[in-house]
Amino acid sequence: MIENSFYSQEFHGPYELYNLGDFTLEEGGMIPKCQLAYATFGELNEAKDNVIVVPTWFSGTNKAYEPYIGEGRALDPSKYFIVIINQIGNGLSSSPHNSLDPISMVNFPKVRISDDIRAQHQFLTEKYGIEEIALVVGGSMGAQQTYEWAVRYPDMVKRAAPIAGTAKNTTHDFIFTETLIDAITSDPGWKNGNYQSCTEVVEGLNRHAKIWAVMGLSTEFYKQEQWRLFGVNSVNEFVYDFLQPLFAAMDPNALLTMAWKWQRGDVSRMTNGNLDEALGRIKARTFVMPIDEDIFFPPRDCEYEQSLIPNSDLRIIKSICGHFALFGVEGSAYFDQIDKHLIELLSTPV
Amino acid sequence: MIENSFYSQEFHGPYELYNLGDFTLEEGGMIPKCQLAYATFGELNEAKDNVIVVPTWFSGTNKAYEPYIGEGRALDPSKYFIVIINQIGNGLSSSPHNSLDPISMVNFPKVRISDDIRAQHQFLTEKYGIEEIALVVGGSMGAQQTYEWAVRYPDMVKRAAPIAGTAKNTTHDFIFTETLIDAITSDPGWKNGNYQSCTEVVEGLNRHAKIWAVMGLSTEFYKQEQWRLFGVNSVNEFVYDFLQPLFAAMDPNALLTMAWKWQRGDVSRMTNGNLDEALGRIKARTFVMPIDEDIFFPPRDCEYEQSLIPNSDLRIIKSICGHFALFGVEGSAYFDQIDKHLIELLSTPV
Repeated sequence: MIENSFYSQEFHGPYELYNLGDFTLEEGGMIPKCQLAYATFGELNEAKDNVIVVPTWFSGTNKAYEPYIGEGRALDPSKYFIVIINQIGNGLSSSPHNSLDPISMVNFPKVRISDDIRAQHQFLTEKYGIEEIALVVGGSMGAQQTYEWAVRYPDMVKRAAPIAGTAKNTTHDFIFTETLIDAITSDPGWKNGNYQSCTEVVEGLNRHAKIWAVMGLSTEFYKQEQWRLFGVNSVNEFVYDFLQPLFAAMDPNALLTMAWKWQRGDVSRMTNGNLDEALGRIKARTFVMPIDEDIFFPPRDCEYEQSLIPNSDLRIIKSICGHFALFGVEGSAYFDQIDKHLIELLSTPV
Repeated sequence: MIENSFYSQEFHGPYELYNLGDFTLEEGGMIPKCQLAYATFGELNEAKDNVIVVPTWFSGTNKAYEPYIGEGRALDPSKYFIVIINQIGNGLSSSPHNSLDPISMVNFPKVRISDDIRAQHQFLTEKYGIEEIALVVGGSMGAQQTYEWAVRYPDMVKRAAPIAGTAKNTTHDFIFTETLIDAITSDPGWKNGNYQSCTEVVEGLNRHAKIWAVMGLSTEFYKQEQWRLFGVNSVNEFVYDFLQPLFAAMDPNALLTMAWKWQRGDVSRMTNGNLDEALGRIKARTFVMPIDEDIFFPPRDCEYEQSLIPNSDLRIIKSICGHFALFGVEGSAYFDQIDKHLIELLSTPV
């Protein structure tokens, strides 16, 4: 266990913690007193049928979704009870840096998407008695979790909207994620996961950030100098003053925990590797929402999976920001698309 | 100067060497007795108007182009005098590892694409008295050099075919190349460029290779398991037994020299930054030939440049291999497209 002030109410609050008790993991081992950090917006109605669940993406927390929420929007807290749940290992929920021995730091166990969804299910049922989810929506690893929710609990999930992510991670994505892992673990300061502070791993984190600069955006984003959307005045500022500091504050072992999990996201693990069968189980009305300029979750891959989901539509989001459109820096140009599709989805009777 | 048996006649021969004498560089400094390694196919005719010049790509040598050459093909040695010229710093021509002090290893000067083309021009005119080039064709950095040839010597170059490359390197590409550089220079074994053998930098070279595995191919390449084209039986074999050993044999400083040069390829340096004016200078009949699945020299970027070239066509090559289609592992599925376009180009009167 080490200190990291980045993972705090100051930067990511308000959020609360729920203690799942000892949580056994699919890969073996368990997390004692496993905690999920979460943030809620709106009120659970009496029928308990106005729940929207939003799982977090790689390196993101509940805070990253705040721009998605607002009155009159799809994620409207005056109508819905919106629960943003931080994935295990993201730095706020139980994670390598905030866990005690014997699972502290590099000894933190391997966590799968399936573990997250079982944990989130336990949390929502135990704490709120929720038996029905109006919508699960999330971006990137949040999309992976959305798929896992819809396949694992098909009767509970009424609608699903995976944004910029896949149900079964692709080989290309697996290798891409390897390069992110390599960037961190190759830093001698990482010390096989036993650094005392993330500042010791800053060079590895900076390399990791620069790979994101290549894969997270689009060729056209740079050509049109759209880094201005991030409030910077040059491409160098974008890489060195925005992206690198963003990741440098994070815990390397948290990123590695999430990367390992991301690489192995695959709903077909529930059906002996049969993806058709897994996606065929989904009962939710589903909008599959890739981003047109996404380099590593390209629409082509998402379209294939959508074709295997019974009651689904493909809704492609247009954004020159590529995968990082998820940050929402384009404002209404992005959110108007998201809201339009999600409002339509939420208005569909199920 | 260090030994590296990879750069030898055994692996890249037959090739010859031409001594340019002391060669002054645009960035300052010079290469004493600068040598260009080259390979020729066919005979120079009496009119000296049957010359095809082929500059090499990043990490490649003359050897890489041999599959492009053959009787009845576009690059037909029974008709043309084909000269493949190794770029400076590629390990065969004057390079960090084969140079003596004071420009050995990390002290090797910065070389620009413009230096290469001036060097190649000196070589062709001095050695052969060539005043006209029927075609300059090259892939990737070979395309960058092709553009430089066509803009710098517009009266000499009659036809040009840049494959999978740009006239002005893009910002996205610049950052991508940074990640390749970071992968190598972050290896403590690199020792600021003063390693004794490339084997000391194998971890950095391996990381560099893995980034190529992400950017060099396409998402669909992996989905369809097209790594079989490279004669391997699994994706792990492709990454660990093909790509990593391929790059591990190379000289890290050579790769860094080429990467620095690649990042700064820009014909508009000849026209005070005016790309329209630079490309407008081209008199060659030009076929711009991007590869449809290329992640980092995407057709969109190439199409824009093509629109600025007076007498040009856009000819998109289809290949699931993305940028690495250049290796030619698809055989006729790839080469039939290349040959068709180049035969048409070569048959165009100029």
